Amino acid sequence: MLNKKFEQIQLSHGGGGKEMNALINDMFFTAFANPILTSQEDSAQLQLSGTTAFTTDSFTVDPLFFAGGNIGKLAIAGTVNDLAMMGALPEYLSCSFIIEEGFAIKDLQTIVTSMAEEMQQSGAHIVCGDTKVVPKGCADGIFINTSGVGKIIKQGISVNNLQNDDVIIVSRDIGRHGAAILMARDSLSLESDLTSDCASLWPIVEQLITANIDIHAMRDATRGGLSAVLNEWAMASNVGISVDEKLIPVSTEVQGLCELYGFEPYDLANEGTFIMALPRAAADKALEVMTQYCHCDQASIIGYVTDAHNGKVILNTPWGSSRYLDIPQGELLPRIC
Amino acid sequence: MLNKKFEQIQLSHGGGGKEMNALINDMFFTAFANPILTSQEDSAQLQLSGTTAFTTDSFTVDPLFFAGGNIGKLAIAGTVNDLAMMGALPEYLSCSFIIEEGFAIKDLQTIVTSMAEEMQQSGAHIVCGDTKVVPKGCADGIFINTSGVGKIIKQGISVNNLQNDDVIIVSRDIGRHGAAILMARDSLSLESDLTSDCASLWPIVEQLITANIDIHAMRDATRGGLSAVLNEWAMASNVGISVDEKLIPVSTEVQGLCELYGFEPYDLANEGTFIMALPRAAADKALEVMTQYCHCDQASIIGYVTDAHNGKVILNTPWGSSRYLDIPQGELLPRIC
Repeated sequence: MLNKKFEQIQLSHGGGGKEMNALINDMFFTAFANPILTSQEDSAQLQLSGTTAFTTDSFTVDPLFFAGGNIGKLAIAGTVNDLAMMGALPEYLSCSFIIEEGFAIKDLQTIVTSMAEEMQQSGAHIVCGDTKVVPKGCADGIFINTSGVGKIIKQGISVNNLQNDDVIIVSRDIGRHGAAILMARDSLSLESDLTSDCASLWPIVEQLITANIDIHAMRDATRGGLSAVLNEWAMASNVGISVDEKLIPVSTEVQGLCELYGFEPYDLANEGTFIMALPRAAADKALEVMTQYCHCDQASIIGYVTDAHNGKVILNTPWGSSRYLDIPQGELLPRIC
Repeated sequence: MLNKKFEQIQLSHGGGGKEMNALINDMFFTAFANPILTSQEDSAQLQLSGTTAFTTDSFTVDPLFFAGGNIGKLAIAGTVNDLAMMGALPEYLSCSFIIEEGFAIKDLQTIVTSMAEEMQQSGAHIVCGDTKVVPKGCADGIFINTSGVGKIIKQGISVNNLQNDDVIIVSRDIGRHGAAILMARDSLSLESDLTSDCASLWPIVEQLITANIDIHAMRDATRGGLSAVLNEWAMASNVGISVDEKLIPVSTEVQGLCELYGFEPYDLANEGTFIMALPRAAADKALEVMTQYCHCDQASIIGYVTDAHNGKVILNTPWGSSRYLDIPQGELLPRIC
């Protein structure tokens, strides 16, 4: 019914009246269907117990569609990952759209379908939502906010919990999401199979927890990349972190783009790549679990925690020299996520 | 430190690096300070039990500042009210900003200060957040998403729970928010003291619950106004609702603006006005509680639930005629909230 009447989003789709109800019923409730969502109350009603993780993220990525994903997949994976990184089961999500008048209904349908598909990776459900439409020129296409709640099933994972002699593991080759967006934005016609790493990390985190891996800290390396995560950890736990450049997996495509643009892969955003700090004795078992997943077949120990240079990250180059790996400054790539 | 360096938001304030950390620490953590928020983890950690309400809302109001409030006050009151309307204590909020490059830091500070002040009305706390900056022209000033969770302390309030012979109470005169935005937008130079009704409703809801009022349904009449709420109720509970035009409080200022623009006050948005369905026997006590609050001194019974015209709302005019009060169609006022 919706698609027959309109090909583009109208202001009335956000007006709180008939047209908005039709959009919500025909598209959102159909794609995201579950009894909590469709209850029509002002809020979802959840049964929660224990310690619950709560997180939020707004997505403004440009372009909306890129190699390896789109804003919808990203909006689900991003919030699912924020929960997973706390050892929390991604249970319930909210979803709030800000849509520009004139946005193509078929693109919205593609995005919504991607969201529904991506939720199947973790078993999360959208249980409440909101839809706003702004006049043409007041937003750029579509922005999506997702917030999430879920039960923490592995306690103690914390930015403050890095311990001397912990090893640092990265789950896969870094910088793919940033590089994929850069490629899509500049319509680079490089011969490249480069895709974003955009993915829900809960399945692999669940296996690490099931295998009783003693995870001290875990974080997905989104905006600010590997550099930002390691620096936040070093400062929060007041430890030094030493990483070896030659151990950090970087694809040749990402390396090539970095050389072309003068970026460092450590600063580029990822959307399905995580960093973990854990006792050295647990590292082999963790890698064994991780490398069962094809996107983690390059999971590697890239360094360790030390009591030297507290609060700093040291990058050791293949030529024997060392330098501080700083937290990124300025803006590398606006609207990366 | 932040204010000395920049007068306007830069893209780097959303880049995930040093500048973003400074904005978060110097402005957001200062205004919203609480131990859960400042823990620096990927998600807030909450202790929840029983039945929890979960809701989300994105705010895109234009203009950002209006008589009686601003987007910040609105973003807190709106989500607090969605929780309150479910009989839930507004406990924890998330806050996600999408800011246009070049936005004045002093305006952001004003908005953030309003948010902190408005949270004092309900005791809610912001426990997690996100900040995105988009290039100039990609958004209009600032958009704010707030999501909220809180324990339901009064069970059974539901859109499906209207019962024959329930009375319908409105908490105050209707249409103020819509009218205030209209005035602000058109820079109307009418001599008018009209202000938005924007307010957190938890204090009054808490008193109604404490007084053991048997609330069957309760909803704040935001987008779509009184018409939308009553129609949703009539359809969801499969009942008729009969309301008397002469009993519905409308200020002379709102009435005047409606006549000028050809709007109906029933369709105009409110942001601190709620509708309640409850047994006739409980109405006096409810009104006694409500009228203790100055913004509810006009709280009134405006109609009742009937088993005639199921799924429809009947508006009885002062001249003895009746008509269906329909759910609004089209878009009255884009970016009302």
